Amino acid sequence: MSQLIVDIHTHVYPPSYMAMLRARKTVPYIHDPSDGAEPRLIILSSDDDPATPLDQRGRPVDTSYSDINVKLSFMEKHGINCSVISLANPWLDFVPSDEAQTWAERINDDLESTCADVNKDKEKKPLFAFGALPLSAPSETVVNEIKRLTTLPHIRGVIMGTSGLGKGLDDPDLDPIWKVLEETQLVLFLHPHYGLPDEAFGGPEVINRYGHVLPLALGFPLETTIAVTRMLLSRVFDRFTKLQILLAHSGGTLPFLAGRIESCILHERKFIANGGDTPGPERSIWEVLQTNIFLDAVIYGSAGLQAAVAAGSHDRLMFGTDHPFFPPLHDEDEKWPSVTTNYQAICSCFGDEKADSIGMVLGNNANRVLRLGLE
Amino acid sequence: MSQLIVDIHTHVYPPSYMAMLRARKTVPYIHDPSDGAEPRLIILSSDDDPATPLDQRGRPVDTSYSDINVKLSFMEKHGINCSVISLANPWLDFVPSDEAQTWAERINDDLESTCADVNKDKEKKPLFAFGALPLSAPSETVVNEIKRLTTLPHIRGVIMGTSGLGKGLDDPDLDPIWKVLEETQLVLFLHPHYGLPDEAFGGPEVINRYGHVLPLALGFPLETTIAVTRMLLSRVFDRFTKLQILLAHSGGTLPFLAGRIESCILHERKFIANGGDTPGPERSIWEVLQTNIFLDAVIYGSAGLQAAVAAGSHDRLMFGTDHPFFPPLHDEDEKWPSVTTNYQAICSCFGDEKADSIGMVLGNNANRVLRLGLE
Repeated sequence: MSQLIVDIHTHVYPPSYMAMLRARKTVPYIHDPSDGAEPRLIILSSDDDPATPLDQRGRPVDTSYSDINVKLSFMEKHGINCSVISLANPWLDFVPSDEAQTWAERINDDLESTCADVNKDKEKKPLFAFGALPLSAPSETVVNEIKRLTTLPHIRGVIMGTSGLGKGLDDPDLDPIWKVLEETQLVLFLHPHYGLPDEAFGGPEVINRYGHVLPLALGFPLETTIAVTRMLLSRVFDRFTKLQILLAHSGGTLPFLAGRIESCILHERKFIANGGDTPGPERSIWEVLQTNIFLDAVIYGSAGLQAAVAAGSHDRLMFGTDHPFFPPLHDEDEKWPSVTTNYQAICSCFGDEKADSIGMVLGNNANRVLRLGLE
Repeated sequence: MSQLIVDIHTHVYPPSYMAMLRARKTVPYIHDPSDGAEPRLIILSSDDDPATPLDQRGRPVDTSYSDINVKLSFMEKHGINCSVISLANPWLDFVPSDEAQTWAERINDDLESTCADVNKDKEKKPLFAFGALPLSAPSETVVNEIKRLTTLPHIRGVIMGTSGLGKGLDDPDLDPIWKVLEETQLVLFLHPHYGLPDEAFGGPEVINRYGHVLPLALGFPLETTIAVTRMLLSRVFDRFTKLQILLAHSGGTLPFLAGRIESCILHERKFIANGGDTPGPERSIWEVLQTNIFLDAVIYGSAGLQAAVAAGSHDRLMFGTDHPFFPPLHDEDEKWPSVTTNYQAICSCFGDEKADSIGMVLGNNANRVLRLGLE
């Protein structure tokens, strides 16, 4: 049997979501340039600089975002046997509270039927999905949608950004959501969207000087790191010890900074263990990394991947592509360098003698953890 | 011969600098509590929250910051054979332009005479220093001070924060400074101070909830990563190919994110190589990591250290302690856990069979790179 390759980090905008973005004029939105060129997707506030002509803001958005057949062709080209698709950011964070549940149901039902339709056709590669959450609605609405998702046969988890209900992931109002995720053992795919404030990079002028590099290369992973550290510090992992979280982009920078985070906690005078008045986290970051956290292997280099393996373990890492982002710029027919870079990093990280570990990261871990039932 | 251990990340506030901080009432400043308790050092804006009583802001600052004999005792306790001391942040960033040169000379002469005095006493462990720079003055003043530093026999480099002349490290006005550093081959020790804007963490209330953990554990390393990435993107390393930089805290998160940064550069449409109108960096981040960048090994865990070794190499990593920060909270007489954690990370990262690599990281690299002449 050839090696199973499962892509657990691959995004879609279902057509209904595309139509909603097209109807909007503020971030996030889709703009159709007047010259008939490809539509532009503007999802970051730094993309929406008034100094940039509207027709040039954001980035081109082609059918790879919404046409599932493009996804299936991409899978075929890269030898991917199965994909676990998820709505791309910014999900439903921006939707008015009273519309959130309707949109969540519509999109999750779309995802479910897309997977079901594809999976009926034995010529096609199977698909599963992470569901979207109506996070602008009250938490009980979110809880109900999570319970409903367990009845949809192709949903294998949920995707969430770092703002939670709007106040970050250390918000106690999220507790009912952590609880139902723990009870249902649905995996939470935590993914960045908001990046860092422009000032962190020196302001919008500095950011725009280098295109999207600073927000995408640094803002995204740093946002993820901050979000999950706030969860740790607020003792979410002490209270919900069986929560299962999949962190995008190999945890942002969490595996690299875990030692420093743990050291700062052990030296923090505010925490009761050190004579202060505030409960600090009880379980160490290392224990959390090895029992609550899964990492994707979307890190484009073996250096970072080695830290991800060492901080978690080889049976908690899963291959991903971030499709349809980072397409090739020079030759549309070639295999995507963004994908082959990640593939090569996995192979070189473990070396030839560790084929089992490579196989686990490429697909066997996803198959086991997400109960995909692939052979 | 026993293993040489050199600490290249160890800070001092010379007494003259302490007096200057005591005379100030805004960040950075030192405040003496009315109850006679230890003075408090307030160096981060997040430390200066008006909601916190003045006597409790910041953190205690004892004689370990200014008394070189305390440093020497610390070295003795931890088996450190030599230290390369540097002024702690915020250096002279905040000093009025017309006073900057005076302060830089005074502090650098203090550092030089401290090292000279200690080194005369053969019973004591030798000291060297990184000089401070008058960065609020015009760049020609900074260049002149760098040239003067080469005449001080115990100065082995310079320390700099991430704001440069006030506009970040991609400021073209820094070019004369990069040029003279390249010509003199003085190592630039790049160290964070400003962290991230409060909003990156959810605002001051969220930060204060967890003491200093968020700014220290995440703000500092993320600041370093952003600063050096801006240098890379602005082609500093293409124009000054022999620049030698030592990055604090194992590069912030640079080794972990290097692959993502490189991928984002290769996919950035703004750059000429991809059809845009802006020159992008020519040398890859991997080449820069292996020829221009040294990393300290102050990362408190082998997971991160593995990424640091893989991104650079074992002959570009150097042991450090960050003394006098992160002292033990429970037993003043014990070896500092912050130091032993870093020591253990180095030993476990390489394993028993690689004693040479361990020796290089613990001291031999520093001895070679900083020309310390230790035997």
